[in-house]
Amino acid sequence: MNTGPARIEINEVGPRDGLQIEKAQVPTDDKVAFVDALSDCGFARIEVTSFTSPKAIPALADAQEVMRRIRRRGGVVYTALVPNIRGLERALEVGVDELNLVMSSSETHNRANLRMTREQSLAELGAVLQAAQAAGVPSNVSLSTAFGCPFDGDVPADQVLRLAHQLAEAGAAGITLCDTTGMAYPTQVAALCERMARELPAMPLTVHLHNTRGMALANAVAAWQTGVTRYDAAAGGLGGCPYAPGASGNVNTEELVHMFECMGVQTGVALQPLLAIVRGLPGLVRRELTNPLLAAGHRLATHAPPAWLAERFGPA
Amino acid sequence: MNTGPARIEINEVGPRDGLQIEKAQVPTDDKVAFVDALSDCGFARIEVTSFTSPKAIPALADAQEVMRRIRRRGGVVYTALVPNIRGLERALEVGVDELNLVMSSSETHNRANLRMTREQSLAELGAVLQAAQAAGVPSNVSLSTAFGCPFDGDVPADQVLRLAHQLAEAGAAGITLCDTTGMAYPTQVAALCERMARELPAMPLTVHLHNTRGMALANAVAAWQTGVTRYDAAAGGLGGCPYAPGASGNVNTEELVHMFECMGVQTGVALQPLLAIVRGLPGLVRRELTNPLLAAGHRLATHAPPAWLAERFGPA
Repeated sequence: MNTGPARIEINEVGPRDGLQIEKAQVPTDDKVAFVDALSDCGFARIEVTSFTSPKAIPALADAQEVMRRIRRRGGVVYTALVPNIRGLERALEVGVDELNLVMSSSETHNRANLRMTREQSLAELGAVLQAAQAAGVPSNVSLSTAFGCPFDGDVPADQVLRLAHQLAEAGAAGITLCDTTGMAYPTQVAALCERMARELPAMPLTVHLHNTRGMALANAVAAWQTGVTRYDAAAGGLGGCPYAPGASGNVNTEELVHMFECMGVQTGVALQPLLAIVRGLPGLVRRELTNPLLAAGHRLATHAPPAWLAERFGPA
Repeated sequence: MNTGPARIEINEVGPRDGLQIEKAQVPTDDKVAFVDALSDCGFARIEVTSFTSPKAIPALADAQEVMRRIRRRGGVVYTALVPNIRGLERALEVGVDELNLVMSSSETHNRANLRMTREQSLAELGAVLQAAQAAGVPSNVSLSTAFGCPFDGDVPADQVLRLAHQLAEAGAAGITLCDTTGMAYPTQVAALCERMARELPAMPLTVHLHNTRGMALANAVAAWQTGVTRYDAAAGGLGGCPYAPGASGNVNTEELVHMFECMGVQTGVALQPLLAIVRGLPGLVRRELTNPLLAAGHRLATHAPPAWLAERFGPA
């Protein structure tokens, strides 16, 4: 089996991509505590919040307050989603290390999610990229539906690459290929990541996976085998997509960390404090979260054999 | 990305490995109907039942009746688990196409699960293999805990290979490497499968994966990349392990089929009739089963865009 990089980076997106669709209104104090706890786990990046209009996403209306109040730990890049110039202004007022801009690879999803055509999004993002550059803040762009669109179906790789080239020219400091509704499959992920590396070798590439159809970890390994070093993930698998019925959330950070650490790949993330955070998530979002890894524990968390064994066979 | 075989075989183990640990007593009629429905999906093999002592596994006490009453469809190999000579006799009375014998790769799991030392198991299986050969019925051997033991922790590959060689010499017609409690990870799966192929190139190899820590599909891809063509799976992810707290079930057949079909790998299994069966499983086992793929549908099962899109942007 072809192996990938010996070290990867994990971007925890739970505070933004997870909390934005939760029904429960999470108090600002709890959001700050969530991010502060994540800061101690060893993530490369934490996507803290979104400077979307509070009307569009009321759950994150306290974006500025959260950014102001979190403890910024050295070595962690604190990012936030910024949809437009107004959002950029709000973000710059409180300071973010890096911006995450977003548009869709497919036309219908862009219209449904952002209420703009892709043409309009490119113009808007171009303006944000320019203003952010002027302010000295690097901007990553997340391309939603890069592996398939819940409305348009398959998204041709050419279409994704064309957008990636346009965004590179417009000044993107990184590109994330997002499997927004869990439509990606391993050979497709590998092919698209390979093509990105070939055509845009200097552009830092991140993959953002969802586990809707069970393939998130398989897709992560496929990306890793092509050399991808940056992965978005959400603690507890928070998140989802409001436009795709049954769509489950982001790849679980803890499952991703556990798998890569099993394979001897350094993630920088400490699993035990992360699992402690995951254990507290149902309290944060006020709903049950099924979490197989949390129930089962680390693969080497062994159990005592049944007591009758010693009686029957003598001491082991 | 290295790709694997263009065609794989799936062994549906739900009727045996799934139902054996269900609390609900499933009526014989329902078991027969379950197997008959599976027969129409295109599986290479169906593991129908287990000829274990009815005292040990009361849920499958009707093994003979089920085997007698199922409709045997041409092209499907109907297998059953057989633990010992007494089980073999019961199996031969009703006719099975292939036997599945079982022992553990690790000492403590063998003692806990089979109440024998591995030495005793090897002797018992040797006798069964000989008697089955005399009766003209091929026998596959499933090696439990091949990727880790919930009591002993990591299981050295040498230990698994030594058992595989001994079983090959004793007359096994195939060997299954079982990740009984979901401890396997992709690079490990690839390494062990490669070694099996190198040291026992003529021995048909099956992998049996559990999704306890989310890695089942990633492990399946890893096995496939090394050339493995045979996969155990259980519809709806039924199954588990009574000795490992929190252990979830077998890899979901429908997720496995869906993923491989997405990658252009022929499984022979038709997804739609399989999903219809999965939809009925909560009724069969009388408990809720969370099933992401069933909720989300095929990756290309697209949705209508929101109605306001046309108003805002005109017809697509």
